[in-house]
Amino acid sequence: MPQPVMSVMSAAELSNRRDPAAIRTAIRAGKYTGYTAGLAPGHVQANVCILPSDYAGEFLLYCQRNPQPCPLIAQGDLGNPFLPTLGKDLDIRTDIPRYHVFEAGRFVQEVTDIKNLWRDDFVTFVLGCSFSFEEALREAGLPLRFLDRNDVAGVYETTIDTKPAGRFHAKLMVTMRPFTPKDAIRAIQVTSRFPNVHGAPIHIGDPAAIGVDLDKRYQGVGSGEVLAGELPLFWACGLTPQLAVANAKPPVCITHAPSSMLVTDLRNASLAVL
Amino acid sequence: MPQPVMSVMSAAELSNRRDPAAIRTAIRAGKYTGYTAGLAPGHVQANVCILPSDYAGEFLLYCQRNPQPCPLIAQGDLGNPFLPTLGKDLDIRTDIPRYHVFEAGRFVQEVTDIKNLWRDDFVTFVLGCSFSFEEALREAGLPLRFLDRNDVAGVYETTIDTKPAGRFHAKLMVTMRPFTPKDAIRAIQVTSRFPNVHGAPIHIGDPAAIGVDLDKRYQGVGSGEVLAGELPLFWACGLTPQLAVANAKPPVCITHAPSSMLVTDLRNASLAVL
Repeated sequence: MPQPVMSVMSAAELSNRRDPAAIRTAIRAGKYTGYTAGLAPGHVQANVCILPSDYAGEFLLYCQRNPQPCPLIAQGDLGNPFLPTLGKDLDIRTDIPRYHVFEAGRFVQEVTDIKNLWRDDFVTFVLGCSFSFEEALREAGLPLRFLDRNDVAGVYETTIDTKPAGRFHAKLMVTMRPFTPKDAIRAIQVTSRFPNVHGAPIHIGDPAAIGVDLDKRYQGVGSGEVLAGELPLFWACGLTPQLAVANAKPPVCITHAPSSMLVTDLRNASLAVL
Repeated sequence: MPQPVMSVMSAAELSNRRDPAAIRTAIRAGKYTGYTAGLAPGHVQANVCILPSDYAGEFLLYCQRNPQPCPLIAQGDLGNPFLPTLGKDLDIRTDIPRYHVFEAGRFVQEVTDIKNLWRDDFVTFVLGCSFSFEEALREAGLPLRFLDRNDVAGVYETTIDTKPAGRFHAKLMVTMRPFTPKDAIRAIQVTSRFPNVHGAPIHIGDPAAIGVDLDKRYQGVGSGEVLAGELPLFWACGLTPQLAVANAKPPVCITHAPSSMLVTDLRNASLAVL
């Protein structure tokens, strides 16, 4: 994974790395601009996509039609940067360590706040992320070897079309995690409880059936390792809506930087449907 | 499958083939001695095993230790042939179409009631059966091709040891049902809701990993068909406790005859844990 552009403070230096509000306060003060993996354990970290209102209705429809890759957990009000359902005083303009800014679908810059970029016609979308179900998998005793190596799950583009909505369309992106058959069954059960963070896998077994070559990871991201006796399981991935945005080419779009997520006050366990 | 020894009445001639109590009344009167598949849809059909009390404690422990192959849904009181939790006036001596009698683990005869064989030291065990989850799979729109051909799921002996209890021990027996990867994930979700009728599969994918050759079905029973693009899913099977009884060699044991199950008043849906 690429290193953050700057790092005023390391994750270990955060005054309370278990408290999501304290973490957001440090981020807001410009004191922390790193990755968020491992911070505020037990709490939901989320993907963020900020769009002009002209694109917001179509993007919402895209999420509604593709809930597995685009599990919407909050949508901000028009022009309002606060998201009170996700955290007290949470301000989307300052509370993410690093932001990526896109114009017409093209990356143009990375910034640590968007106070000067915020507009009255912006709408914020917050989408669930697999960090939440990975925590549930680990708590169930299921091994995720890539985490032990500080890596992430392998990312792949499939040949499966998502359901388009207006200008938004994309192939389904997936993450792959390998398990023994017994653990695969348990992993399906555990992740089925979390539809708001991608839910159950969309595929198990033969990668070619969904157009995937395990050796060809998207931008080389993550681990594609599958050991003898294991089955690859494929989950819908939050990169899908980012590609849909790239395809829609809105004049401006702002997202979190990869692996520097929005840390919310929601508990992962609160997302379980049962 | 072998034909029933006798058939005074066909399933179609039953006065009310949807009513479990009416079906048991016809069976009790000696008017129906056939297979029970398709009778009383929506209601639990169950495996039955009747043992002398000297073996009952160990068999109960065997079920407790191996809940996937031996999902106990009722145990009768010592010497009492009635099972009020499963049906009004249900009499285990008369309400099964055909019984198999074993001595020292060896089959000795098939009979249509056990009134003359019942003893004061008998204990009845009633175990869930995959008929219940097959109904749930079909209701979920998942294809079970063997049912369309009036066949049953392929039955296999694995190399997996169940947990022994006293004189009871056996290899785990399984049934196999093939699904596309997407349907396999759904089948795992659907059957996970029904732990009292074998629950989730115990294995998915490579049959050799559990010592199974798909071409070598146990006693040739059922369909071993897996089409290209499908994964075999393996569920623990109610034949396991029958083999454990054969290994324990009690002086006498009485079971239902294959495919002629106990029809209960319980609804399949009532077994769902959520």
